[in-house]
Amino acid sequence: MAQPTIARPETETFVRNVWYIAALRSEVGESLLGRTILGISVVLYRTRAGKVAALRNRCPHRGYPLTEGKLGDDDVIACGYHGFRFGPDGTCLSVPGQDKIPGRSDVRSFPVTENGPFVWIWMGDPELADPAGIPAETGFADPDFRFVSGNVVIDANHELIADNVLDLSHESFIHATKIGTREVAETPITSSSSESRWLVQASRIMRDVECPPTYRERTGLRSPIDREQHINFFVPSLYVLDTMVVAAESRHDPADGPRRAYHGKVIYGLTPLSERQTHYFFAIGRDYAQDDPEMDASVQEGQLCLIDEDAYAVGVLQNLMDTEGPEFEVSIRLDTAALIARRMLARRLRAEAKG
Amino acid sequence: MAQPTIARPETETFVRNVWYIAALRSEVGESLLGRTILGISVVLYRTRAGKVAALRNRCPHRGYPLTEGKLGDDDVIACGYHGFRFGPDGTCLSVPGQDKIPGRSDVRSFPVTENGPFVWIWMGDPELADPAGIPAETGFADPDFRFVSGNVVIDANHELIADNVLDLSHESFIHATKIGTREVAETPITSSSSESRWLVQASRIMRDVECPPTYRERTGLRSPIDREQHINFFVPSLYVLDTMVVAAESRHDPADGPRRAYHGKVIYGLTPLSERQTHYFFAIGRDYAQDDPEMDASVQEGQLCLIDEDAYAVGVLQNLMDTEGPEFEVSIRLDTAALIARRMLARRLRAEAKG
Amino acid sequence: MAQPTIARPETETFVRNVWYIAALRSEVGESLLGRTILGISVVLYRTRAGKVAALRNRCPHRGYPLTEGKLGDDDVIACGYHGFRFGPDGTCLSVPGQDKIPGRSDVRSFPVTENGPFVWIWMGDPELADPAGIPAETGFADPDFRFVSGNVVIDANHELIADNVLDLSHESFIHATKIGTREVAETPITSSSSESRWLVQASRIMRDVECPPTYRERTGLRSPIDREQHINFFVPSLYVLDTMVVAAESRHDPADGPRRAYHGKVIYGLTPLSERQTHYFFAIGRDYAQDDPEMDASVQEGQLCLIDEDAYAVGVLQNLMDTEGPEFEVSIRLDTAALIARRMLARRLRAEAKG
Repeated sequence: MAQPTIARPETETFVRNVWYIAALRSEVGESLLGRTILGISVVLYRTRAGKVAALRNRCPHRGYPLTEGKLGDDDVIACGYHGFRFGPDGTCLSVPGQDKIPGRSDVRSFPVTENGPFVWIWMGDPELADPAGIPAETGFADPDFRFVSGNVVIDANHELIADNVLDLSHESFIHATKIGTREVAETPITSSSSESRWLVQASRIMRDVECPPTYRERTGLRSPIDREQHINFFVPSLYVLDTMVVAAESRHDPADGPRRAYHGKVIYGLTPLSERQTHYFFAIGRDYAQDDPEMDASVQEGQLCLIDEDAYAVGVLQNLMDTEGPEFEVSIRLDTAALIARRMLARRLRAEAKG
Repeated sequence: MAQPTIARPETETFVRNVWYIAALRSEVGESLLGRTILGISVVLYRTRAGKVAALRNRCPHRGYPLTEGKLGDDDVIACGYHGFRFGPDGTCLSVPGQDKIPGRSDVRSFPVTENGPFVWIWMGDPELADPAGIPAETGFADPDFRFVSGNVVIDANHELIADNVLDLSHESFIHATKIGTREVAETPITSSSSESRWLVQASRIMRDVECPPTYRERTGLRSPIDREQHINFFVPSLYVLDTMVVAAESRHDPADGPRRAYHGKVIYGLTPLSERQTHYFFAIGRDYAQDDPEMDASVQEGQLCLIDEDAYAVGVLQNLMDTEGPEFEVSIRLDTAALIARRMLARRLRAEAKG
Repeated sequence: MAQPTIARPETETFVRNVWYIAALRSEVGESLLGRTILGISVVLYRTRAGKVAALRNRCPHRGYPLTEGKLGDDDVIACGYHGFRFGPDGTCLSVPGQDKIPGRSDVRSFPVTENGPFVWIWMGDPELADPAGIPAETGFADPDFRFVSGNVVIDANHELIADNVLDLSHESFIHATKIGTREVAETPITSSSSESRWLVQASRIMRDVECPPTYRERTGLRSPIDREQHINFFVPSLYVLDTMVVAAESRHDPADGPRRAYHGKVIYGLTPLSERQTHYFFAIGRDYAQDDPEMDASVQEGQLCLIDEDAYAVGVLQNLMDTEGPEFEVSIRLDTAALIARRMLARRLRAEAKG
């Protein structure tokens, strides 16, 4: 083919009955936003009443993208090819040249909800879409945390990215100049899981370790520090990392002031665009420097740099998968959480296939 | 694959026993013109005697394109790789290093003819190639019409383009600033067909309607006008649209002078380059302003702008077909002609496959 | 796929039990050189002791390329993703977060040897890798010859390039301004072969022929000359062309001085990068102007120009193979050596598949 195509595999590889992050809330306004999710093109917009609408982005007539059409003041999209008109719930309101609207002229509408800085979408059975199912572990409801958020597209399958974020020992190599120190790769993890929540947990507790550059800059701490990483990964898509750093001398007395502990939250939403591309949404929370816009900008910029480094690594792996195919992999103890997640994903896909 | 490839489907999707437009007459001179038609690379040139030659563009020796060779004063092409030599009828005249010319050394020659501003080629059974089979509806023989012509390549399958030109209601959306008005999409069409000629006809007659910008500019007419569109589409490739505009007040008396009717002809030759690309030849005729070179330039430029708008739309659809696959389509009355043409194409392909 | 992929055919198309040129000796130093050979990514480097190491360029852990890692002063590569460490023989020396090294953690090592200006690699059964198997016909051990060398990557399958170099009649067309004259294409060849050495031989002896521009410039000879080309092609990869030019009048007395014969050696190593790309190594030897650095530069530059011309031709053919598929080919007597080589390659692949 002369143009890039989204791979469409023989067997389903995406979980559908789950809330995926579709967009930043700030991205969805009173204009048409096209976004491909699980290989399906979706159009998102906000009605005049402020509600988010999410429709399949193809007119049922000749398949033209609705994003090429016009959104009217009445929240109605007119297709840009032949003028079919649709309301925000997908109902076809008129067709050209005749009064009768044929059957099957409605466009599919997807359940959406807003939670934290994100718009979430449900690509599966709409009967199962319950906004309460979005895990509270994000901390978006916690007033102690201030979040900055953003998103990029990464040229790799979502599983390669999940592998990456579930094995933080890569910080010591990929992010050596920012948040990685020797001790991250050297410290064993403990892991656990909850099948009912499709949840994998992993923790790494480091005592008397080096303070990496990014933390030195943001908190003023100096080595040695105590450092903790607690991961909650809701398979297949939502990653929540709780971090804590504190001066090692304050371990038993992490009070306010110079002896306090600094808590962070790293939320990633891995939303497959296709088999080969993934939307990477992030929200980075902190319980310090809450009214500091310079810190906001620094966290945002720093996060994009980290993601760039990860995107390079997983992009290299994706290219090798494409050109040389999968390889036998040796696994070690640090891979435990990633391996649990892989197996859980396989079970979740099988469960969904059975229906 | 590292490079774009022309898709070669399992089943034949091109009609072969039909005259396709291969080139503008002005494109074919005493140098080698390479052009891919139905996925087959062809070399076209004009002999010193002025006759057009069309050969398969691959030397039978090692498959090197003849367009990479040299055309001599004797109308003979010498292959640029090892020097096999061919006459304009494809006969191999000599091979290097030996006197005997092996069997099967001739290169395939295709029937060609010139008609109107175009060179036409016959890619099927040469026994069936009769230049009289080119429909007279083009009006190329009509001295009342002056034509301007041109060609572009569009990144879409020819059927997507046929859909486009057979449902002119798209003018109201895609070409809203030029030739589309609200009434085009709102006016029903009448359609008919002739199986023996592989012909689909569609007419749209509009009374007391708005005069679109392009017609205002070219004819000086002002709203309201009467406007007619009569399509003859010879499946799969030749599209002839007869247009008429006249001041509404002159409906019953379209005489010369300020009350006259303005007639136009829009000829499109849709020649598949591959499954994913189509040569789009056009000739635009008019029975007014015949000696006006500025009008020629304006028509030419205007047509290229219209095609750009259509090319964008069908290119978007082609990409979606590639990435998301075909979709169920709702059809309406305005699609009647396009649906007749699709079914006729399927019958014509089956008829040809049976032989 | 959105990105170029290396084609991985159903059946093996590469001979493995043969020495392939992997790099110029000058390319391999104390840093990591990545090179894809037979579709397999390899990392090459030189230890502090000067020995060349060649490893599979993917960490056995998560498949990350070792070229993205760091080479230490101890000749040890640390993977850039999670820090697995490997010695120059591929032995895994340590893994992160645990003391025990899991089984199968070593990375594959390939036999290498240095011969002439090249590093050679053995991609097949290491038990069979004998450096003495590199043919002596290269002349690298002959003190009478001075060589210049270089390498490029060509966007074509190695068989298209072998066809090219085995039928030198193309010189008369592709290289008409440099080394081709009319007589090359007109002069028959004699050919022979040795199955035990997987060797094809072809000779072309031209008497009283034109001296082509490149030879005029390099030797000062003027037409007429006697000219000889003797090819030894070791299927599938190593091409050795012995050339001789001498003033025709000196045929029976090619002594030193103005009446001498000029001998050249053209060594090509065709090392498949993939099905669609080939490393093209060259070493050009001469027994004259040995201490002339300007001649070195001229030979190097001239060779790159010749390869550019060939690369264009075989790239055109590769594209046609991709888009239009293989075609029936007419063969002539000048193709004898190339046809022998093709059949020998098929036999060698079958022999290797059996085992």
